[in-house]
Amino acid sequence: MANNTYRVPIVEKIFNANDQIAAANRRLLDARHVFSINIMASPGAGKTSFILKTIQALAPDLRTGVVEGDTAPVTIDADKITAVGMPAVQINTGGDCHLDAVMLKDGLEQLPLDDIVLLVVENVGNLICPAAFSLGTHLNILIASIPEGDDKPYKYPAIYRGVDVLIINKVDLMPYVPFNMDYFRQGVEMLNPGLTTFPVSCMTGEGLDSWVDWLKQKVAEGQNR
Amino acid sequence: MANNTYRVPIVEKIFNANDQIAAANRRLLDARHVFSINIMASPGAGKTSFILKTIQALAPDLRTGVVEGDTAPVTIDADKITAVGMPAVQINTGGDCHLDAVMLKDGLEQLPLDDIVLLVVENVGNLICPAAFSLGTHLNILIASIPEGDDKPYKYPAIYRGVDVLIINKVDLMPYVPFNMDYFRQGVEMLNPGLTTFPVSCMTGEGLDSWVDWLKQKVAEGQNR
Repeated sequence: MANNTYRVPIVEKIFNANDQIAAANRRLLDARHVFSINIMASPGAGKTSFILKTIQALAPDLRTGVVEGDTAPVTIDADKITAVGMPAVQINTGGDCHLDAVMLKDGLEQLPLDDIVLLVVENVGNLICPAAFSLGTHLNILIASIPEGDDKPYKYPAIYRGVDVLIINKVDLMPYVPFNMDYFRQGVEMLNPGLTTFPVSCMTGEGLDSWVDWLKQKVAEGQNR
Repeated sequence: MANNTYRVPIVEKIFNANDQIAAANRRLLDARHVFSINIMASPGAGKTSFILKTIQALAPDLRTGVVEGDTAPVTIDADKITAVGMPAVQINTGGDCHLDAVMLKDGLEQLPLDDIVLLVVENVGNLICPAAFSLGTHLNILIASIPEGDDKPYKYPAIYRGVDVLIINKVDLMPYVPFNMDYFRQGVEMLNPGLTTFPVSCMTGEGLDSWVDWLKQKVAEGQNR
């Protein structure tokens, strides 16, 4: 009986409420073979344009559903998605500065998950708060844009540290604004070494092919999961 | 005795804790004859460049102090201010997405208020949360920028509704991006009729004279208060 003592249970990680619902979102998406990405950016970095270019490049073979996060009850962005024939749900955060897992859960209930292979979540335009709320998506993607300036990784490190992919949008504006690409990339590398990065322009189309090819590969892996 | 009944006290406005400290900030600034502006914008709209151009145009006759709000412990912006010979204090919000009145109070204690006539507060780059926290400054100023796109008033109405002055920065980029100025101004007018607006370019200097002349007038009024 000497060895029959109590074992101390070790709980490896305590999920908070948001993370628990995020995990449920992920299980639902995996069960339906839907690959999912969460797009975060500053206001005006070009989230909606980038999403539109992406879903148009994937169509008609691969269908995409979109959850649009907005702080106001305007459907400007969601209307652009449905105009190209893909299902979209708008989530009005009622002034809140980010989406959370509960909001995405509600959004998923309104989407025809069996008709899509890719879910794109357009988060609220904000470089700070969205970084703190996991949604359960497979990848977190940050869109930086050239006219924002090259010091953004240094000034908003949390979001750069946490993402899986970086899109550098509006590279067509490089000739017209001061932007030191080496300084920018140095900051990114410091926070998130080896981060997968795609420089693109949604205006000229530059760089979008590489991104779309990469994404197609990820969607295919999602189908086989 | 018929008329000697209890009167119901009517409290016109209950200030919350932030508003009470904001009011104290205002009293302090008025007592020192310092005119003060709170600058809000999306990340990369050009807040620091605009502040630099402004304080350089006012110097050496009118001296400016700056409070820099940052979410990370980097002094990139504050260093630019001290490099032009003006006092600056950096407030690191520790990841928080806005400044509040308590943070400004702490900042004011570190500034030589008797040596300046203008206080500029550079808020955290965010179009959502700063709108909800009064700091006690005399004017709230929003900087929009052309590459952000013309739909921002419709998508971030709260901040457009609450400001006293709108700066439209980066007008030099108008030829290179799609931006319908009429649509933009329509949105602004709907939310904030008659809003004082200055289109400028910190790159070319266009429009800055009008803004600086207007601000000088306000600073002079502050001196006589």
